[in-house]
Amino acid sequence: MALKNDRFLRALHREPVDCTPVWIMRQAGRYLPEYRATRQRAGDFLTLCKTPELACEVTLQPLERFELDAAILFSDILTIPDAMGLGLTLEEGVGPRFSNPVRSAADIARIGIPDPESDLRYVMDAVRTIKSALRDRVPLIGFAGSPWTLATYAIEGGSSSDYKLAKKMLYDAPADAHALLDKFARAVTLYLKAQVAAGADAVMVFDSWGGALSAAAYDEFSLRYMQLIVDGLKAAGVSVPIILFTKGGGLWLEKIAATGCQGVGLDWHTDIGAARARIGNRVCLQGNMDPAILRASPTAVEREAAAILSSFGQGSGHIFNLGHGVTPDIEPDNVKALVDAVHRCSRQYHAST
Amino acid sequence: MALKNDRFLRALHREPVDCTPVWIMRQAGRYLPEYRATRQRAGDFLTLCKTPELACEVTLQPLERFELDAAILFSDILTIPDAMGLGLTLEEGVGPRFSNPVRSAADIARIGIPDPESDLRYVMDAVRTIKSALRDRVPLIGFAGSPWTLATYAIEGGSSSDYKLAKKMLYDAPADAHALLDKFARAVTLYLKAQVAAGADAVMVFDSWGGALSAAAYDEFSLRYMQLIVDGLKAAGVSVPIILFTKGGGLWLEKIAATGCQGVGLDWHTDIGAARARIGNRVCLQGNMDPAILRASPTAVEREAAAILSSFGQGSGHIFNLGHGVTPDIEPDNVKALVDAVHRCSRQYHAST
Repeated sequence: MALKNDRFLRALHREPVDCTPVWIMRQAGRYLPEYRATRQRAGDFLTLCKTPELACEVTLQPLERFELDAAILFSDILTIPDAMGLGLTLEEGVGPRFSNPVRSAADIARIGIPDPESDLRYVMDAVRTIKSALRDRVPLIGFAGSPWTLATYAIEGGSSSDYKLAKKMLYDAPADAHALLDKFARAVTLYLKAQVAAGADAVMVFDSWGGALSAAAYDEFSLRYMQLIVDGLKAAGVSVPIILFTKGGGLWLEKIAATGCQGVGLDWHTDIGAARARIGNRVCLQGNMDPAILRASPTAVEREAAAILSSFGQGSGHIFNLGHGVTPDIEPDNVKALVDAVHRCSRQYHAST
Repeated sequence: MALKNDRFLRALHREPVDCTPVWIMRQAGRYLPEYRATRQRAGDFLTLCKTPELACEVTLQPLERFELDAAILFSDILTIPDAMGLGLTLEEGVGPRFSNPVRSAADIARIGIPDPESDLRYVMDAVRTIKSALRDRVPLIGFAGSPWTLATYAIEGGSSSDYKLAKKMLYDAPADAHALLDKFARAVTLYLKAQVAAGADAVMVFDSWGGALSAAAYDEFSLRYMQLIVDGLKAAGVSVPIILFTKGGGLWLEKIAATGCQGVGLDWHTDIGAARARIGNRVCLQGNMDPAILRASPTAVEREAAAILSSFGQGSGHIFNLGHGVTPDIEPDNVKALVDAVHRCSRQYHAST
């Protein structure tokens, strides 16, 4: 069935649009009181992720408030290591913890590749439920964490600020790191393929911690495995657009674009006009307002949104977003000011197309 | 008097050297048992900073262990806001706190520009004491925080992970932010000029948090004020080399090099060979190994050091360093392995010069 609003997909294909599409990373999240209410009903975050009806409910909440041009599956990047048996717990204020971290060749040998339709059935059910509830209003984005990003959690046993153990493995036991990253790449490929089969109209890979690496380590341990995912999806006949987002990856945009993905996510450190000059003839750019600006006045939010649209300039190939997720302390009205400003201020850049 | 080892200064001027000079950010620090002993004698970190004999003692400690090519004044970037009356306390495990943060136009109007030889006399005395104790063995580096980096602490009232209040000021009250940054730029210029008068052979500006900004905000609120410092020092007749280091500034190297500084610090995200191609004809590059590599084996440390030297390639204009400070959990022997590897492996790149 044809989508009622296909701006997001048209922008990914760099086809003409009437105005710049916009969605917001973590648009279904704690800054929304209705989200907090659903989460409280669920009891905890993991139950919310694992209950398709509730995941569907929170996925749709921001679409009721804001004129967003895409929905994104409500889930977590850690579903895959959880399904591998690493023993995920998510405690408020503590962050994710794995009771069985992966730190040795034996640990790595032990973990298997989850079968999406059995081991991660709840995610596929959520995609199907959301897709149906959306009634083709906007496209649905599926997603996964990048192999390197998943590996940091698996090795550290949770969040980290310095990736001590994960980086030690890269430098002292690179063969182990490659074995683990290869398993994650295979798992992510199957997982995203299954999300597309269940109804996702595009998929995004979040390489949240790729930017913590050196240029050489990024190539070897992060980008290489995102390339395997892009290649694997294409080989499997998956034809929906793929967006790769390495937070802190502004130096490496050419290499990311060269993977064959359709969209490249930008954090707020890169000037989007400069990024367009570098890779805009090959891919769509997604981003890139500093989420901190949502703490300022609506006037400032609109001014900064307009500056980003102006920096990108005339024509299609831009999906507006923040450079990272919206934080729990943001006023929903400021998100509305942003979304509306993007649509209003961007029409001038699409007038001739 | 002529320096016995002037590799560091020769590299800054891109003059021939026998091997690549090396020093380590936070080389006088908690990873050294002798530092911890002196600090314990001092009682606390601020007393250590404010007692010239003890600051001198810890400055020289790493030079006794390692063949370092420069000493760096032991001090803290927060001496300036402390001298401005912001009420600095430094508690172990808590980090720096200011009892009088600067959050309004009235707060900003109230603070004055410290006179280095009276208000920060202890720093100048430390420079003189260290310079004398060094007996021209190696050059002495003076330093300060960048205006933006100092402003984040002054506005937030301490360390921050997201710079909520500081960024809010940039976007909602830019005139206030400029007034504060201008005061810090004037204070830093006087402070560095006085350090040079007291004996510093080069100065470095640490823009530790410039990389948290968007490209546009970096230009307006960080780089602009480092430019004022470079211009101010030159106008005051200060002729020693200036090194600017924006952590996370890899996208902006051309703009940093265009300030007229002699050296540009690199964090580990930038490939140093790529950085040299971009700005190596104008400035010396300082960096850039991931400090996390010091947690790996000496073999890995030496391999990674060799890879950085190889990426920079033939000739002068490189000062080896980490991409950020050495952390307290590092084995001193691994720092020795690094320093020795840099000298040993770099001779081949200077053979013909």
